[in-house]
Amino acid sequence: MSNPSKGRFITFEGGEGVGKSTNIHFCATWLRDKGIGVITTREPGGTPVAETIREKLLKAHHEEPVDPLAELLLMFAARAQHLNTLILPALEAGTWVLCDRFTDSTIAYQGYGRQLPMEHIHNLKALVQHNLEPDRTFLLDAPLEVGMGRARARADSAGEQIDRFETEKLAFFERVQHGFHALAAAEERFATIDASRPLTDVQQDLALELEKLL
Amino acid sequence: MSNPSKGRFITFEGGEGVGKSTNIHFCATWLRDKGIGVITTREPGGTPVAETIREKLLKAHHEEPVDPLAELLLMFAARAQHLNTLILPALEAGTWVLCDRFTDSTIAYQGYGRQLPMEHIHNLKALVQHNLEPDRTFLLDAPLEVGMGRARARADSAGEQIDRFETEKLAFFERVQHGFHALAAAEERFATIDASRPLTDVQQDLALELEKLL
Ligand SMILES: Nc1ncnc2c1ncn2[C@@H]1O[C@H](COP(=O)(O)OP(=O)(O)O)[C@@H](O)[C@H]1O
Ligand SMILES: Nc1ncnc2c1ncn2[C@@H]1O[C@H](COP(=O)(O)OP(=O)(O)O)[C@@H](O)[C@H]1O
Ligand SMILES: [Mg+2]
Ligand SMILES: [Mg+2]
Repeated sequence: MSNPSKGRFITFEGGEGVGKSTNIHFCATWLRDKGIGVITTREPGGTPVAETIREKLLKAHHEEPVDPLAELLLMFAARAQHLNTLILPALEAGTWVLCDRFTDSTIAYQGYGRQLPMEHIHNLKALVQHNLEPDRTFLLDAPLEVGMGRARARADSAGEQIDRFETEKLAFFERVQHGFHALAAAEERFATIDASRPLTDVQQDLALELEKLL
Repeated sequence: MSNPSKGRFITFEGGEGVGKSTNIHFCATWLRDKGIGVITTREPGGTPVAETIREKLLKAHHEEPVDPLAELLLMFAARAQHLNTLILPALEAGTWVLCDRFTDSTIAYQGYGRQLPMEHIHNLKALVQHNLEPDRTFLLDAPLEVGMGRARARADSAGEQIDRFETEKLAFFERVQHGFHALAAAEERFATIDASRPLTDVQQDLALELEKLL
């Protein structure tokens, strides 16, 4: 990914309500102002086929429960589709790709949170990504109460239901949070941003980080 | 799977039109007449969630092509769902499971036919099946023209369209056929049945094979 004609692949990670969607738009605008071609996308989803997997299979409540391993395979099926039909061609064309959640979320939620065997996740990651990693990953980090409070307020004001993952229990979210911290500690590509501060402070840090990537 | 309180897992393999559906019903009836509890099922599919994957994702034509690796992951997602929610619980309960296609079809069609990396297929097989293999696999074997002729006649008389896999090319089907033969030669669990003969002859052989499993 150090080929200068290629776009940069930047992922945004962290729990619900920390500000991923808000800040991905900020970063896209900031980069476009510098004349850089940018697309923003999200996981699971990002292409019509991958969004179908998200809609029909990950969010739906079925007459039968979805087997955890089946769910993990669906997640990586959506990711293979997203990567091979959208992300990689964009990067090849020199476009920067900003992605709202990626494999780190799978590791944090399915691995640390739901405690599926980490080995399975790593095998699937290797199968789908080969050696590809994001060039930079922004971990938007805030105490659980902060993110949950924001997500709840956002859902209320939009008259929306909070989705399945969001209604799961506190111990689960603590494991997820711990997972994100463990990933950020282990991999250089992470920049951890304190997202409990006012948005202007968060975005000042993000702009500094983006500057380094130019 | 040699635990006598468990049901037996029997798969039916072979190209389109060789007689899998016809003979799975024959075998189910034959076993029920002996007082054995039997379910019949099929892949891809077999449970509501797995059938959704089949319908929405494998058969549909999309505004974008489905990435081959994504398709392989969807296939194994459907298989994990089928195995963990239907097949394994049935076998545990002592019910015999007769399945119209299983992983051997993935190896023959995606591996030999479409030439996806065999290593990927074997990794996913290990992930989803651990050490589970069918107790017996009936390969219904007939020259390509025989199966294709039957499948075409069957589709015409039902006023149906032949699905995507069936409209692919002859060289492809020859690779698939070769794949089934290679699998049958390599694994003891296979019984190869000459399916080009009249149905009564085919079913006489199947009855003899079933007898051995009682
Ligand atoms: N640093 C911040 N301070 C205060 N509110 C914020 C901050 N970041 C985001 N928000 C608000 O919190 C809510 C959740 O943010 P959002 O970007 O949707 O989070 P996410 O995509 O991570 O779930 C939104 O209403 C957003 O305006
Ligand atoms: N041994 C056979 N001889 C003649 N016709 C057969 C024989 N086996 C199956 N058929 C017919 O061929 C067609 C395809 O059989 P089917 O069981 O649907 O195949 P598959 O499920 O393998 O695609 C059906 O119309 C069936 O009645
Ligand atoms: Mg969001
Ligand atoms: Mg059939």
